[in-house]
Amino acid sequence: MQELVLGIDVGGTNTKFGLVNKEGDVLAEGSCKTKGFPIFKDYLAHLVANVEEVCTSLPDHKIVGVGVGAPNGNYYRGTIEEAPNLEWEGTVYFTEELKGYFKNMPVILTNDANAAAIGEMTFGKAQGMKDFIVFTLGTGLGSGIVANGEVIYGSDGFAGEIGHTLVNVFGRTCGCGRKGCLETYVSATGIKRTVYKLLADYLCDSELRGVSFNDLSGHMITEAALKGDFIAEQAFEYTGRVLGMKLADTVAHFSPEAIFLFGGLVNAGDLLLKPAKYHMEDNMLRNFKGKVKLLVSGLQNKNAAVLGASSLAWKELGKNL
Amino acid sequence: MQELVLGIDVGGTNTKFGLVNKEGDVLAEGSCKTKGFPIFKDYLAHLVANVEEVCTSLPDHKIVGVGVGAPNGNYYRGTIEEAPNLEWEGTVYFTEELKGYFKNMPVILTNDANAAAIGEMTFGKAQGMKDFIVFTLGTGLGSGIVANGEVIYGSDGFAGEIGHTLVNVFGRTCGCGRKGCLETYVSATGIKRTVYKLLADYLCDSELRGVSFNDLSGHMITEAALKGDFIAEQAFEYTGRVLGMKLADTVAHFSPEAIFLFGGLVNAGDLLLKPAKYHMEDNMLRNFKGKVKLLVSGLQNKNAAVLGASSLAWKELGKNL
Repeated sequence: MQELVLGIDVGGTNTKFGLVNKEGDVLAEGSCKTKGFPIFKDYLAHLVANVEEVCTSLPDHKIVGVGVGAPNGNYYRGTIEEAPNLEWEGTVYFTEELKGYFKNMPVILTNDANAAAIGEMTFGKAQGMKDFIVFTLGTGLGSGIVANGEVIYGSDGFAGEIGHTLVNVFGRTCGCGRKGCLETYVSATGIKRTVYKLLADYLCDSELRGVSFNDLSGHMITEAALKGDFIAEQAFEYTGRVLGMKLADTVAHFSPEAIFLFGGLVNAGDLLLKPAKYHMEDNMLRNFKGKVKLLVSGLQNKNAAVLGASSLAWKELGKNL
Repeated sequence: MQELVLGIDVGGTNTKFGLVNKEGDVLAEGSCKTKGFPIFKDYLAHLVANVEEVCTSLPDHKIVGVGVGAPNGNYYRGTIEEAPNLEWEGTVYFTEELKGYFKNMPVILTNDANAAAIGEMTFGKAQGMKDFIVFTLGTGLGSGIVANGEVIYGSDGFAGEIGHTLVNVFGRTCGCGRKGCLETYVSATGIKRTVYKLLADYLCDSELRGVSFNDLSGHMITEAALKGDFIAEQAFEYTGRVLGMKLADTVAHFSPEAIFLFGGLVNAGDLLLKPAKYHMEDNMLRNFKGKVKLLVSGLQNKNAAVLGASSLAWKELGKNL
């Protein structure tokens, strides 16, 4: 009988999950809606039903642990707290409720970006690294920080909110209620806002002039930029510049060996990485220049959070042996 | 025979040292010039002669280890590298040379702010804390970061350069060659620059109008502010505001339990702490509000770096038992 861990990635719209063996192979996977279940218990029943259905397709196996990556997830408490992109208000006792379905095994939750960092360390390009950071560029900007070989959770479990550091005190309104946070510039939503700013600033043709704000996606901007659309290219240049400048500050805090970028926008490749690298180096303190690698995640286009969450559970199981 | 550790704090102008027992009592101390020895070996001979002289005053004892705190000190390599405030250019092999004088014992070096953080953890207010940060406000701004109970050195030993994160891209010229670094605002030198800016902006009387830039010290500004001098008070308000805004970013990275401030400027008390706290809270992400303590160092007006460097050596000796 094969032992597997259930890795869960809770997103604002959908939840993805996978059954993962110790080597990081996803033997089965599925997804279900996150949105549309204002009562958390209903969502959880729906999720578990979906997992059970996927499990029927698998040969003889046993689930021995569960790892969850979730926005505003708190590793210490197993809770999701005040997540602006989820329907559940206040504090959700995620692992406590989930243990009702998965008894006598570790059920562990962490922030989705921390899960991605653990995934990078276990199955990606950060294997063997002790000091690195993963930036996940999605609806928002998440960051998972590893120093001295350990994820930094901080005193109350919410470390790694680099998406909410300040770029411009008079800047764009952020979902967190403040202004000018990094994620209002560097994220799928951020680059969309940049495209609209550039469409206002310039008069040149762009295939994006025919798309409404609501319809515009990060994927469409990436596709347009790869085809040479000026506005889309400039949007990546601007995004990379803001990211690079803030990365110089992050490097001053941590002196990491590498910084990994993860998410759909990263498929634009050098359109994003080149300006980000240039402005990171240009703004960095002399001691750090030329030393910090800026790389595409080794789990790009895989589900880093599912893999990371599952490896977190595997790690916990390893401790208990 | 009592076993003691020699703790050394290398400053730009003077070097302080102390002979410290395991409980953190400084049984003897002294200082000597750092400036005026362009050749590093000459400085070291001068330092060791001073230490030996102080040792003659001590009853039966044995030095069993040496800890050094130095600007741009590298813990991994035992070197001082490219320190802008010291006369020695390039890389100085500090511990290697010092081991010529102190044989068969641990000789360990770290950044002066990291030493202060270790001191805070061992003998100050951070005892029992796993996640905290110490800011040392001197000629520059140093920061020592502890996460998961360990000092963060980063991949090449230079983590914790929060003094060189960006406040204003069009801001003040920094000793590091860039513009707008935090330490150009928040440090003894920074507040001096702020006083001169305010003397230019306002027309009101101030006892500081009679002092030249070269003669003005952080101590004089503190004294003037405590007596109610408007310009000096406003300089602390401005310094606290800039510090508070950047602390909000630092909290987003680390989610620390506490942040400690150390250095002469901190003797201004609430004149600095009140605006710093207000603007830290005002700029902080909701998750962190009201949770992070901003405190005066428990080693304020003691030599935190000497104590920290010595405890680093004691820790190393503990490992070898």
